[in-house]
Amino acid sequence: MWNLIAISVQALVFGLPHPVSCHPNNLKYGKPSSGEPDAEGISTSQIFYGRFISTPNPDTLLIQHGAVLVTSIDGRGYINMTAFNLTRPEDAAAELGVGSDVAVVQGTDTGFFFPGFIDTHIHAPQYPNLGLFAGTLLDWLRAYTFPMESSLGNPNSPAYADSTTTPDPYARAMQVYSHVIDRTLAYGTTTCSYYATVDVPATNLLATLAYAKGQRAYIGRTCMDNQQYNPEYYRDESVEDAINKTWATINHIESLDPSGELVAPIITPRFAPACTNESLTELGNIAVQKDLRIQAHISENVGEVKLVSELYPQQSSYADVYEAHGLLTDKTILAHGVHLTDEEMALIAARGSGVSHCPDSNSALGSGIARVRRMIDAGIKVGLGTDAAGGFSPSLLDNVRQAFLVSRLLSFQEGQNESLTVPVTEALYLGTVGGAQVVGMDGRLGGFVPGMLWDVQEIVLGTEPVDIFGWETWSDRVMKWVWNGDDRNVNRVWVGGRLVHERR
Amino acid sequence: MWNLIAISVQALVFGLPHPVSCHPNNLKYGKPSSGEPDAEGISTSQIFYGRFISTPNPDTLLIQHGAVLVTSIDGRGYINMTAFNLTRPEDAAAELGVGSDVAVVQGTDTGFFFPGFIDTHIHAPQYPNLGLFAGTLLDWLRAYTFPMESSLGNPNSPAYADSTTTPDPYARAMQVYSHVIDRTLAYGTTTCSYYATVDVPATNLLATLAYAKGQRAYIGRTCMDNQQYNPEYYRDESVEDAINKTWATINHIESLDPSGELVAPIITPRFAPACTNESLTELGNIAVQKDLRIQAHISENVGEVKLVSELYPQQSSYADVYEAHGLLTDKTILAHGVHLTDEEMALIAARGSGVSHCPDSNSALGSGIARVRRMIDAGIKVGLGTDAAGGFSPSLLDNVRQAFLVSRLLSFQEGQNESLTVPVTEALYLGTVGGAQVVGMDGRLGGFVPGMLWDVQEIVLGTEPVDIFGWETWSDRVMKWVWNGDDRNVNRVWVGGRLVHERR
Repeated sequence: MWNLIAISVQALVFGLPHPVSCHPNNLKYGKPSSGEPDAEGISTSQIFYGRFISTPNPDTLLIQHGAVLVTSIDGRGYINMTAFNLTRPEDAAAELGVGSDVAVVQGTDTGFFFPGFIDTHIHAPQYPNLGLFAGTLLDWLRAYTFPMESSLGNPNSPAYADSTTTPDPYARAMQVYSHVIDRTLAYGTTTCSYYATVDVPATNLLATLAYAKGQRAYIGRTCMDNQQYNPEYYRDESVEDAINKTWATINHIESLDPSGELVAPIITPRFAPACTNESLTELGNIAVQKDLRIQAHISENVGEVKLVSELYPQQSSYADVYEAHGLLTDKTILAHGVHLTDEEMALIAARGSGVSHCPDSNSALGSGIARVRRMIDAGIKVGLGTDAAGGFSPSLLDNVRQAFLVSRLLSFQEGQNESLTVPVTEALYLGTVGGAQVVGMDGRLGGFVPGMLWDVQEIVLGTEPVDIFGWETWSDRVMKWVWNGDDRNVNRVWVGGRLVHERR
Repeated sequence: MWNLIAISVQALVFGLPHPVSCHPNNLKYGKPSSGEPDAEGISTSQIFYGRFISTPNPDTLLIQHGAVLVTSIDGRGYINMTAFNLTRPEDAAAELGVGSDVAVVQGTDTGFFFPGFIDTHIHAPQYPNLGLFAGTLLDWLRAYTFPMESSLGNPNSPAYADSTTTPDPYARAMQVYSHVIDRTLAYGTTTCSYYATVDVPATNLLATLAYAKGQRAYIGRTCMDNQQYNPEYYRDESVEDAINKTWATINHIESLDPSGELVAPIITPRFAPACTNESLTELGNIAVQKDLRIQAHISENVGEVKLVSELYPQQSSYADVYEAHGLLTDKTILAHGVHLTDEEMALIAARGSGVSHCPDSNSALGSGIARVRRMIDAGIKVGLGTDAAGGFSPSLLDNVRQAFLVSRLLSFQEGQNESLTVPVTEALYLGTVGGAQVVGMDGRLGGFVPGMLWDVQEIVLGTEPVDIFGWETWSDRVMKWVWNGDDRNVNRVWVGGRLVHERR
């Protein structure tokens, strides 16, 4: 199961593997199109033929049929041209203006291509805790989360208290991080915004693995330098320690992928109480200096909101704490926002920051129901997040379902106001286009439009667990996929044109 | 996929297949124990060895290891004796006092035996609509539910409006009903309380299929004789028509299984507005006369509650309408109960009736959150139901998850009152022991106790979709199964000692 464990951790962290897709010969379905030089650094093309379903806007489920020409340059595959309403695959090459020797990847009659999901909030080191809960947020952090996170690097983690063998924290990091990437890809998630841990080698390992496996990933070392609010066994030792370690991961990740296209560092003050005033300020400075993404938690839980207001009496709100430290930018991802006030929403919208809505987690931890409709109406960019392991599932599709369910409960509670419901099509939009906006990839991910990257999942239906009887419209088939689909329906997954997952 | 379609509908409805398990030679894992006569009508035994997990009470997850002796008499297998804390399967026979020739069914090291789930509320004919929603309850009934239900029997159903071929309503019934039984068994559901339709041959077909496939099933022809509130294309023609058709299904089902142990009729006034005063009264009389189970909907949706209060101004509440017609007995299953008042809860508890909590459905249709803790505290028996296709999933386990999730949201909303949460262990209890109470099988289903029927699912872990890393306690493994498990984890399913499902 853990076939990568055999590879030495050191080799992966320091001997950086070149991504497989960089050389055209390694593109599983691609081969050079006629007339293109067969050399690294030049382009290769492939044609995708079949049904293409996407949500170009929140209330449109767009169902198209035809062909898409994907061109890869330096291993970065984007949509070059589309030809919808074709009925025969053999017409595709001519219609797209390429030679007949360009390989055609055909979808099945029973399935469709769909934009890859974008998980705007996921804690990679918590993956082994999926489904393990204890009380609400602050209890659960101490009982399950911090012991597990610290075990990926610290041999003295409480997670090893009962261990009868010598702990091997980096072997565990390899096991856990390999698994979270493999499994999220298997569920059709092509982009993840990951929280890692305080540990530099383990965080760098996560970045290296994401790069090698080909998942689009933003990797954040969690800053936790507040000596009072973090456990003694799991924190940064000082402001200086926190900032030095932050730089160490930024430098590693940038050396992996100087373009920042596939993997990139993301500034990650875990949440306001985990950091000091000084580290928050310095992280804001680094983000500006390097033009980096930022991620943090906000207003997930009422106890947490109260704690922040006590720690920062001079600030008018939780959002204002981040604002005061330069951490609200148009590249900021704020997770949860369950208890944001209207004033905070206005501030977040004005700064162009986005919110990661994590309904699985908010229900499971009893945090409450985020007011998604109000956020959207306020002009905030909203995407979806699994928040593994506050959420119990690695599947973003599960959060699409849950986004609809909790919004219907909210609609009922607020005087049966149906306008608060997030319909299924809009929930799919949040999981793709909305996610792209939140992670700063608006217009580059989330649809089948020329210029967009080919980050795509191929969905197949007609077998377990989705029951298709044959009389359903395609729109109804998509709804059936949403409600009962899982990783069994994800046949193939591509990131930047590279095939990164194929169902066994 | 639909391998049973080839069998003539007529043969199945009128030529009743004898259940396979009635003859000992057909028991896949059983053979006669030493000294027992090898003849029909006498007993056969089999030993199950491995890990046995159950919830004997709401706050106990009982994990046992050892062997269970299951004895089948006339094809009805029950737990004869248990020997827990054994460590070697070869010691089981001696410990249980049977010969060494009794077959031993071994569980896997990575799994456990768990009581079969009891789905206390499921609409068999709505199975093809899983995941298709439109508005709240009353809109959805008209848009999706009634067309689909009527299509299983009525060639003039609106479901066939776009059909280009001659409709074959009983072929469709065969397809849909075979599928709902196969799939619920595959998800570990050993007992279902089914709503069928108004149609007699189709309802009888459902009973025959359940009997042949070996699922424990209560089958109700839905009474819908109110000419005003049911669609013209889908209703009983008169009170007399409704009552005659009710008897026709009772007689058929009793001829299938005179003992009523495996399949039994259940009196099913769909919900108060679907019936006339007269039919409600007569159905109450039949239930008393024949000592039958009863099922109906109650207080699912605020619009429905209002309609009932307008139709029955002389009754003090929705529950009182059923009470006035003799329909609240200790064999009554009331689905939903989202908006029950405290007075109604007291009445339902006093009558010994049970409630089927259907959280998937209540969220999906925006009905609200049922006050499960209050019902239990009021002394009401509570089980879980999928309410397919108001619920979107055929999986009772999905409703175990959702029961926890919505109760946590309710806890948050009601002043962060954690006592309103239904913990996971209690949700499992509701799905097994609670369900047994609700369907009138208290003490006969839901655990590993001598005298109980062997209605059991074998769960296997360690493969997709549940990630086990190896360091988890068994209690944590059960939680991981609850949160990410699906039909892939259900290896084998037995009902009354008969193997009725084995994962391919």
